[in-house]
Amino acid sequence: MSYESYFQSKREQHLDELKQFLAIPSISALSTHKNDVNEAAQWVAATLKKAGLENVEVHPTAGHPIVYADYIHAPGQPTVLVYGHYDVQPVDPLNLWETPPFEPTIRNDKLYARGATDDKGQLFLHMKAIEALLSQEHALPVNMKFCIEGEEEISSPNLPAFMEANANKLVTDVVLISDTSLLAKGKPAISTGLRGLCSLEVAINTANTDLHSGSFGGGVPNALHALISLLATLHDDQGRVAIEGFYEGVPELSAAMREEFKKQNHNEEELRTKLGLEALYGEEGYSFVERIGARPTLELNGVYGGFQGEGTKTVIPKEAHAKITCRLVGDQDPSQVLDRIVTHMESHIPVGAKLVVKRGEKARAFNMDPSIPVLQKAADAYEEVYGTRALFTKDGGSIPIVETFSRVLEAPVVMMGFGLPDENLHAPNEHFNLENFDKGLLTIVSFLKRL
Amino acid sequence: MSYESYFQSKREQHLDELKQFLAIPSISALSTHKNDVNEAAQWVAATLKKAGLENVEVHPTAGHPIVYADYIHAPGQPTVLVYGHYDVQPVDPLNLWETPPFEPTIRNDKLYARGATDDKGQLFLHMKAIEALLSQEHALPVNMKFCIEGEEEISSPNLPAFMEANANKLVTDVVLISDTSLLAKGKPAISTGLRGLCSLEVAINTANTDLHSGSFGGGVPNALHALISLLATLHDDQGRVAIEGFYEGVPELSAAMREEFKKQNHNEEELRTKLGLEALYGEEGYSFVERIGARPTLELNGVYGGFQGEGTKTVIPKEAHAKITCRLVGDQDPSQVLDRIVTHMESHIPVGAKLVVKRGEKARAFNMDPSIPVLQKAADAYEEVYGTRALFTKDGGSIPIVETFSRVLEAPVVMMGFGLPDENLHAPNEHFNLENFDKGLLTIVSFLKRL
Repeated sequence: MSYESYFQSKREQHLDELKQFLAIPSISALSTHKNDVNEAAQWVAATLKKAGLENVEVHPTAGHPIVYADYIHAPGQPTVLVYGHYDVQPVDPLNLWETPPFEPTIRNDKLYARGATDDKGQLFLHMKAIEALLSQEHALPVNMKFCIEGEEEISSPNLPAFMEANANKLVTDVVLISDTSLLAKGKPAISTGLRGLCSLEVAINTANTDLHSGSFGGGVPNALHALISLLATLHDDQGRVAIEGFYEGVPELSAAMREEFKKQNHNEEELRTKLGLEALYGEEGYSFVERIGARPTLELNGVYGGFQGEGTKTVIPKEAHAKITCRLVGDQDPSQVLDRIVTHMESHIPVGAKLVVKRGEKARAFNMDPSIPVLQKAADAYEEVYGTRALFTKDGGSIPIVETFSRVLEAPVVMMGFGLPDENLHAPNEHFNLENFDKGLLTIVSFLKRL
Repeated sequence: MSYESYFQSKREQHLDELKQFLAIPSISALSTHKNDVNEAAQWVAATLKKAGLENVEVHPTAGHPIVYADYIHAPGQPTVLVYGHYDVQPVDPLNLWETPPFEPTIRNDKLYARGATDDKGQLFLHMKAIEALLSQEHALPVNMKFCIEGEEEISSPNLPAFMEANANKLVTDVVLISDTSLLAKGKPAISTGLRGLCSLEVAINTANTDLHSGSFGGGVPNALHALISLLATLHDDQGRVAIEGFYEGVPELSAAMREEFKKQNHNEEELRTKLGLEALYGEEGYSFVERIGARPTLELNGVYGGFQGEGTKTVIPKEAHAKITCRLVGDQDPSQVLDRIVTHMESHIPVGAKLVVKRGEKARAFNMDPSIPVLQKAADAYEEVYGTRALFTKDGGSIPIVETFSRVLEAPVVMMGFGLPDENLHAPNEHFNLENFDKGLLTIVSFLKRL
């Protein structure tokens, strides 16, 4: 039986199983859901076992468990390690869901539920692809390992240590992850780059109490004035970050890379209209896809101080705050970038202001050369199933664990996504287009057989 | 009997009466206290009647009532109109009060209660001064009018229309107000200037939704970046407002005025330490008292946009907001100042930003020449009772109704305050120092007799 016929014959059964998985409210961020998260881990372990995988283990951690399994019966063949996560985002605001987030429902060939595309649906494809291969051929073309966590949505606090401690067990030739998206319906993409990240919080203090602007206005510092004059120094008029040394380690875009970006053929005007923008905006000399794929940023994510209620309050705020994140590319070192921001700020402290900086998250950018064979084979697999060769893209986002996998296991990472950009991940009415459910199963099988 | 003996003999009785007045929770801002506010109006009317005033009327308005009374039996003598208010501020946070706000309590010769100094306590002095004069002399040295409102703490929405409609009834030679403070204990002051005020709210919009900084960061406008680059243009490096025409109508400080300011002898270092400031800050070339008394300001009272919760959220905010107030002096026209701010902002809109401005309150500055006889007589009265001549000061705050009184009734306004700057008005543990209760009664009697 062809794999197409096999998956067609099992489709109802597979969707019923996936609905069971999606019905478990495994929200890792909420401690009230701890038992649900654990139940999802057990469900993954049982499903891996049922698929035919061996050595299935549920490893407790300081947080939620990590599920491991393997099937090592292809001597001389490469090993593939599948990473995925069985935890999901919170569901607020609940009233915006058309059907309840943990009552999976199919409408218009889309499966609606929290986790449908991020990442239970995509993870499920790998388990069912292995089950299919073992059921049809009683053997796998490669050695397989699964490493599935329950803390991806809370920044994977326990996975790096688990990886370091179990590096021998996890040793692999390829890391395979399906937790990203196609460029658009029918347009597959393989991400070969992710931006890094660093974050910081800034507080400006000017007095020990808020002051009345009648009695003191004009005679004392205002924390908001100070913060704003400080923040205004962070960018220049051309949209560049104006911090000395910020761009160190940022590679120049080669002609070949610019060609690759051009292939993505982004319609900037359509994007502008869709997002309700007056104009796109960014560093001069770069297209939108280059700006988000290959250039670093410094963004204010939040700024606040003083009165926010209705009407007027004649207050001079004693403190003001900013939350900042940077997206990093190339060899930018997150710690060094933070140092440079702090140095810049310290040399621009306004009169009368005290500066307090709190450093936060740090992750390096991740980059792979798209010409390596394993990525070309992934593109071949997409081409076979979708009739279109996958484009190699650079993602603007950051998945710190990808860089960790690549570094600790010293293996290339294939990001073979089957989501779509508009499937509302992290938002109400998350869903998974079943066209990519069907094609995803076939693409994974094709990829594993090509290795 | 001297007035001193008279007031001494009545002291317990007067304080008991004032406590009754203070026990009425007449919070004008809270609709649940509407009956209490009305009760306070009735209390004022009854007390005015008991003092001997005639034509006592409680005028309903669209909000809280205005109490009127008069005693016109001094032909050929000037008329004095007393303005005050019987409403009080809300009391939150209640847990910071040492004794409940509406259970008046005397500790260390200070009377603690909401409204003790602002303004029930000070208003009470005028009623008891009249009662004393009529009781001792069976006549008043001047014609008296009282116009007492219950909406001062909510910006007097109905008083200006009442004043215009009853301008003939309210016609007067002097407006007398006790709703301000001495400079310090034993240092009386008469305010001859108040700053004006105008307010506006600014919103910057850049997109129809918040955007993910991974997928869009570097390629779309950020509302916070836009707002901050706009707000950063409002001041120059010398602490001056950098808006064209902002200072039009601002008088230069004369040598005489600077001498008057110097007399206030403000200890700037003590102020800096008390407020926990790194430095005082303001327009170069002016002292602290000059900056707050004679110079206009533009202050950011609140700025907000994006994420304010714990930790990091990689969001590009679609909107950002600022609340701004200006204190005005001299002949600055509040409407014109608002126009100029808006014009400035419109010519500095950052790329990709939409600007929405909402204009708010407007009040002109109020100024009087301290050399006019009625103010000198007020200073004489203070000198007689306090042993120190009152200083003529310029207040940084704004009491819009003062300018309205002066303009509509075309009469000088004598701001004869008996509070102290640290009596916690608008805050927990508001109180009134009874030294100024005693001296206030005598000062008012002395002032009225000198006219």
